[in-house]
Parts: sequence; structure tokens; C-alpha cells
Amino acid sequence: MAPIPHLSVSIPSLFLLLLAACTNGFSEEKNLLHSEILKDEAVARLFELGKVSDSKDFLERTFQSAASVRAGNLIRRWMEDAGLQTWVDQMGNVHGRHEGLNPREKALLIGSHLDTVIDAGVFDGALGIITALSALKVLKIRGMLGNLKRPVEVIAFSDEEGVRFQSTFLGSAVIAGVLPVSTLHVHDKSGVTVQGALRRNAIDISEENLLQLKYDPESVYGYVEVHIEQGPVLENVGLPLGLVKGIAGQTRLKVTVKGTQGHAGTVPMKMRRDPMAGSAELIVLLESLCNEPESYLSYDGQCAASTAQSLAGSLVCTVGEISTWPSASNVIPGQVTFTVDIRAMDDLGREAVIYEFSNRIHQICDKRSLLCLIERKHDADAVACDPELSSMLKSAAYAAVRPLSGDEPDDLPVLMSGAGHDAMAMSHLTKVAMLFVRCRGGVSHSPAEHVLDDDVWAAGMALLAFLSSLV
Amino acid sequence: MAPIPHLSVSIPSLFLLLLAACTNGFSEEKNLLHSEILKDEAVARLFELGKVSDSKDFLERTFQSAASVRAGNLIRRWMEDAGLQTWVDQMGNVHGRHEGLNPREKALLIGSHLDTVIDAGVFDGALGIITALSALKVLKIRGMLGNLKRPVEVIAFSDEEGVRFQSTFLGSAVIAGVLPVSTLHVHDKSGVTVQGALRRNAIDISEENLLQLKYDPESVYGYVEVHIEQGPVLENVGLPLGLVKGIAGQTRLKVTVKGTQGHAGTVPMKMRRDPMAGSAELIVLLESLCNEPESYLSYDGQCAASTAQSLAGSLVCTVGEISTWPSASNVIPGQVTFTVDIRAMDDLGREAVIYEFSNRIHQICDKRSLLCLIERKHDADAVACDPELSSMLKSAAYAAVRPLSGDEPDDLPVLMSGAGHDAMAMSHLTKVAMLFVRCRGGVSHSPAEHVLDDDVWAAGMALLAFLSSLV
Repeated sequence: MAPIPHLSVSIPSLFLLLLAACTNGFSEEKNLLHSEILKDEAVARLFELGKVSDSKDFLERTFQSAASVRAGNLIRRWMEDAGLQTWVDQMGNVHGRHEGLNPREKALLIGSHLDTVIDAGVFDGALGIITALSALKVLKIRGMLGNLKRPVEVIAFSDEEGVRFQSTFLGSAVIAGVLPVSTLHVHDKSGVTVQGALRRNAIDISEENLLQLKYDPESVYGYVEVHIEQGPVLENVGLPLGLVKGIAGQTRLKVTVKGTQGHAGTVPMKMRRDPMAGSAELIVLLESLCNEPESYLSYDGQCAASTAQSLAGSLVCTVGEISTWPSASNVIPGQVTFTVDIRAMDDLGREAVIYEFSNRIHQICDKRSLLCLIERKHDADAVACDPELSSMLKSAAYAAVRPLSGDEPDDLPVLMSGAGHDAMAMSHLTKVAMLFVRCRGGVSHSPAEHVLDDDVWAAGMALLAFLSSLV
Repeated sequence: MAPIPHLSVSIPSLFLLLLAACTNGFSEEKNLLHSEILKDEAVARLFELGKVSDSKDFLERTFQSAASVRAGNLIRRWMEDAGLQTWVDQMGNVHGRHEGLNPREKALLIGSHLDTVIDAGVFDGALGIITALSALKVLKIRGMLGNLKRPVEVIAFSDEEGVRFQSTFLGSAVIAGVLPVSTLHVHDKSGVTVQGALRRNAIDISEENLLQLKYDPESVYGYVEVHIEQGPVLENVGLPLGLVKGIAGQTRLKVTVKGTQGHAGTVPMKMRRDPMAGSAELIVLLESLCNEPESYLSYDGQCAASTAQSLAGSLVCTVGEISTWPSASNVIPGQVTFTVDIRAMDDLGREAVIYEFSNRIHQICDKRSLLCLIERKHDADAVACDPELSSMLKSAAYAAVRPLSGDEPDDLPVLMSGAGHDAMAMSHLTKVAMLFVRCRGGVSHSPAEHVLDDDVWAAGMALLAFLSSLV
């Protein structure tokens, strides 16, 4: 990935004028206006949307559920309130577009997702949609929407979390043209297919229709997404916004360790082939390897020094699931299975880590007379954000943060996204850039998910500054 | 526990005479007789009893099930065939007794259990009952049953596995007088109580009756049990029989490790409080501690050198169950829970291991900023077998093994039983001794459980030799 340039000085002139209005007390009215729309109204909308749920006890909004349709209608109303023309496509994505001065120009797409996990927070996904609409509403109120040099389209994607069909990015992948048509026939736990779920909401889609939903790359300028960080880095550095340099590549392994099942009381320690103790040794090794990859990888063959440096900053490894068989407290397990999730910005580095980990798994299993099986269940290459678009977005974010934060930061943090986002699918269509917003404790996918009102405001200001560059 | 003396030379004279008949060809008829009853018939009975099941697909015989009642009737017939007087008590135990020469002498009890786990093998429990009856049948045929100096009673206990009521030793604990009367009201998964299960088979038992089932310790000489090893030691040393020096004490812990739940992609390694990696470190430590307790325990305060030596030979530690929350491959767990099963012959040593392990758990958890909770779920002290009774049983077993094994062993192995047995309950009533029989691969609680025909024979010969000492 090419390096992202440091802050340029191309902060849009319109935005500077708007800021001047905020900061020098020249117009109290304008100041209040921005705050009212970009902060108060945006926050109120986040909580209003967060009440649109399929459960009365917690937030749940999965692909094409009743609540998802209601949420789509609400978002559509807010799109119209921002002066956009709206429609819903055959995958349930909600679109709002303003053609600006030159309808034939390549369009800027801004998006995020309207679906949620089960027992979700109100910010994940919704923040990116609502801040975009707030920023456009400010432009509309200021009478500048018609001056946009290119079309701007906000898309609220119908599925990113993949809860209902265990298949993520249904919404953005179809726009990017990377959703297999066979996905229409995937079914949920109750046997309803993707096609069936859409039909229940009076949306008919055939395999042919699906292919037609792909946008022409020539018609698109780029894709921008604002999203909560879902990690603790911004909170740690004390800044509301950070630029995303890319989305990490990911490999998911399933490791099965087979030993000899036995009675917990009757097999002497020295005669055991215990897959639980073996798995524990492997998990400790994995953690150590991912903490200090440079101590494990050899740089002659496996990877270059640059890879090692990249890995040191971005490599994360997780064992999230583990199970034993037969799972009784008085039985030495015969088999233990655990998942390994490995992510890094550097694809070659990730491969080197998997290669090294696999080798050491086999060494440890040989030493313990265990049978080990490593299955690769999922692979996704890293996605690099576009340096030019990212530089513009970073400048805009910096311009937004400066007047809001007490002390002036030297620079904004540049982060890796370890989580997948719609930008990942959209990168197959066009250049992408992403902005992360600080969230409390790095917590997401939980009702405890929280973004400060001022940080919602900062995100809206950043998008406003970015859009101003198109005026 | 007092040391078990090495082989004495008190091999019963009658048994030597019987053996002479086997080995010098003096009487081919007697040789065949012993083999036919102690091997061929005993093995056939094991498989016949193994067909008495509540399932047609696998062996399942739980407390007071229809198959258990049929099995009891079959055993009762074999008891009568061995010349014993039989009855079934109010806990469903099946008794067969011969008063011998002196009905007022203290009785030798020999027993094991007639119930099984689900999908069981045919040897666990049944072997101890059937070999005892075979040995007594030989004495009967030789006209020596009436010459027994003390009464001999075989008891087929109605419940040792505890499958139906999650409460082990229903059968032997009532005889030993250690079964709480409240047990009558414990219920199984379908709501039937112990009392109700007995009543369905026309056995009425009140709390008062239950207490009356306890044997008077003054009426009992000792308790002997033959059981499959359920471990791999005898197979490893290549001998069919081994003496049990005692039944290990046991502690069961539940360890809960709490960290910070997070997205597998977004929390940098250095910022994690990962309870899965922490638990893996604890499990590796546990294995190491139990492999080499002498490297971990300090001998000034925690335990004496004798404790360390006893631990080194008997300590076993097992993690059989582990679970993560929320258990998703892409989520750093917020909590991991695992079980720890610790067994050793030396109760003080076991306490020292638990103390050391607990201390190190807290050290590791502090280092990792994890919150760790250790709960003691179960404790049982070790049971030492009686040295004198054990010495007699060992002599008898040695006399039985000698003519059957190709080369003459120097001595028989002396093992710890890591599994609980009826002898554990019976030790509250009287002195106990146990003999283990080699089983293939140390496998039990499985249809793959297997004992060689010749080893069944050896077990029968050992009991015959032991009983001969009472003539």
C-alpha cells in the first residue's frame, strides 16, 4: 500500500468560512445551526433509529426484518429532509442522491449499514449514515447542495453484519458486483432464502436483477465511510477521529487436536496424550508469536523487514471458540477444537505468521504424540484505502477536530481497521477512504457501545468539510 | 497409609493343591474344570449379562431400570448355581451368601456393581461379580463350600455409576451406612425419585428401612473387589493383575477467568486482557505442576519429602471441560471457564498442589490484569486399602498369575485407583482390598472396553486362591 501523505493544506475554503462563523462569534446563529444539526439532531436520530428493533428488550435489526424495513423508511425520510432523491433497490439498500451541478460526473458515494447484530449498540453502522445526512442537510440549508461539482449519493446498506444469512456485505457486495447470484438461495435458520426474505417485503429479485444492481465503475468517483472504531486506540490517544489506512486481511483457521480419551483418575500424567494441555500450549504460542512476530519469523526467506514492521503494528490473533470432546470434568478429552482468527495489514506477513504457526503446531503435536489438523476456513486479503482520497478525508477531519479539541493535535492517528466494513466490498468497485470515530472503551456489538455527542459532531463536521471540497 | 508388605509365602495350601492338579497334568479333568468355569463360562456370562440392556443399540443399565431388574435376576440365578442363598434388599442390591462352617463368624464380602454407564462396555462392574461367583462355583463343585471358616457373601450393587440420579454408590453406601436418607427423594430427569423407582419394581422403602440396611461392622470381616483397571498401567507392564493400594482423593475446581471482551480485529495485542490466552497459560502451568510437583512445592512448609514422593507416583490433573463467552471466532472472549480435576493418594499433597496452583493462578491473572475466581466444587479424601487384607489378596493374585504367565514376574504391580469404586463407600464399614484386571488400552465406559479371556481367568483364579485361604 502506498503511504498516505501527511496533512495537506487543501482544507476547503468554504469549510474554512463556515468554521470562521463558528469560532469568531461572527454569527451565533450559524454556529448554533451547525451544532443543532451535526450534534443535537444527529445524536437524537441515532437514538431514534436505535429504538427501531425487532425485539422490545434489545436492539436487533437483521436483513429485511420488519424493523429493518421501518428503519429504511425512517432513513429515507431523513434523506429527503437533506434534499436527496431516494429509492430502495432490490437488495433492500436505501439510496439518497443529489445530482449537483453535473449529473454526468462521477458520483461520490458515502455509506454504511442499517442492519445490526443481536443486542446491538446504536452507533455501529447508523453513525455513518446519519452523519452523512446531517452534513448534507447543512449544505442544503446553506443553499449549497446545488453547487456540488459531482453527484453525491448516500447508501444505507441493507446487510453488513451477516447475522441472518451468515453471509456478510449482502448490501454493498451487490452494488460492488461481487455478490454471487447463488446467495439468493442461501437460507436462514427458519428456511427462508434471501430471495424469499425480499419477496416478503414485496421486493422481487431474480438472479438477472441481482447482476444489474452492480454500479458501473466509470460512474463512481470513490466511496467514503464513517464508522465507530470498535477498538480502543482513539480513546487511548484522546482524539475523536482517526484515518483508516486499510482494512486488515484475515484468515480463520480451525485447529483440531486429537489425543487419547481417558479417565481423569486412572491415566498417569506421563502416559497421557492430552489434547487439552496440547491446545493450551498452542494458544500460548500463538499469543507470543503475535505479540512479537519479529522473534519468530526469519527474514531471509519468509518475509522482508518491512513486512515485520507492518506486522508489529497490525497483527492480531484471537482464539474465540474452544470445545472439548466429550467435555466432562472427569474425562481427559479425546479431542479439542479451537478457532484462530489472524489479521494483519500485510498479506505476505499474515501468510508468514500462518506458516510459522502451522510448523510449530506440528512440532508441538509430534512432541506430544497428538494428531493435529489445521483447516483454513476463511481468507480475505487486506484492502488498502486510496492514498489521495484518504489524504483529502484526513485534511477534512483535521480541520474538523482542530476547533473542537482543546489543544491542537499535531496530526490525526492513522489506524488499521481490523474489522470488515462495507468499504471492503466497495473497494472492488472504486477507491475507498474511511474515518474512524472514537467509541467508549472500544466496545461495540453491545448496548454499552457509546460515542460522545461531541464526537458525533466532529464526524459530521469532517464530512461537511470533505463535501465542501466538492463545492 | 501403612506400606503393603511384599509377597508373603502364605499362599493357601488348598490352592497349591488345586494348582498342582492344573500344572502337572495329574488330573486333566480338574484342569479343564477350572478353565471351563473360571474362563469359558465366566467370559460367556460377561457377554450374556452385557446383552441385558435398556437399549437395543448399546449397553445401558441404570439404577432400577427394566434391564437392571432382569440383570439382577440373572445374577441371582448364577449365585444359586454357585450354591449361595440369595435375596434382593430394599435398595435393589442382589445378595448371595454361604454361611460356611461358622455362621456367627464375621463375613467376607465380595462385590461390585451391576449398573452401567450409557453406551457401556461389558466388564466394568460385571467382572467383579462374575469372577467371584465363578470362584465360589469351583469351591462348590469341589465340595469345599461348606468348609469355609467364615460366611462369604457376594453383593451385586444396584448403583455405582450414578447415571440416573447423579448420585454415585447408592448400592454400597446404603450397606456401609453412609447414604443420607434424603437420597430417597432425589429425582431423575423425568421427575421419578429413588423411592419411586424402587416402588415401580415393587420394592417399598422408607427412610427408616434405609437406615436398617446398614450392616453391623462387627458382623463383617472385610470387603474385597475385583475391577477392571480403567487405565493403561497393567497393559504397559504386561501383567494381568495388580493390587490396589488405595483410591485417590479428589478435588474438583471450577476456574473462571474474566477479561475484556472485544472485537478480534480491532484491539491491538498489547491492549488486550484476553482470558483465553490467560487460561491457556494456567492449563500449561497445571500440567507442568502435576508432571513435576517436586519442582514447584517447597518442602520446608508445604509438604514433607514423603508427600512429594507419593505425589510423584499418583498425582493426576485434568482439564476436561472449557468454555468461552460469548464463543464466537471473531470475538476476544470476555470470560473463560474451565474445570480442574486433581487426584492423589496423599491428601496433604493434594492440598499442597491446590494451594500452589491457586497462588500461581492469582499471580498470572494479576500479571495479565485478569480477574480469576477459583471455586471448590467437590472434595473427597483418599481411601487406603487395608495392608493385611491387601497382602493376602496380593499373595493370592501372585499365585494365580504365576502359572498363567509365560515368565514368572518378580512381583505384582501396586497401583493407585484414580477412579472411585464401591470399595470407597465400603471403607466406611470395614477394611477393604482391591484387585485390578488389565483392560485393553485402559479404555472403559465404552463398547471398546475389553479384557482378555485369560485375564478373566486370572482374576477368577486369584479369587479362588483368596477364598481357599478361608477354608
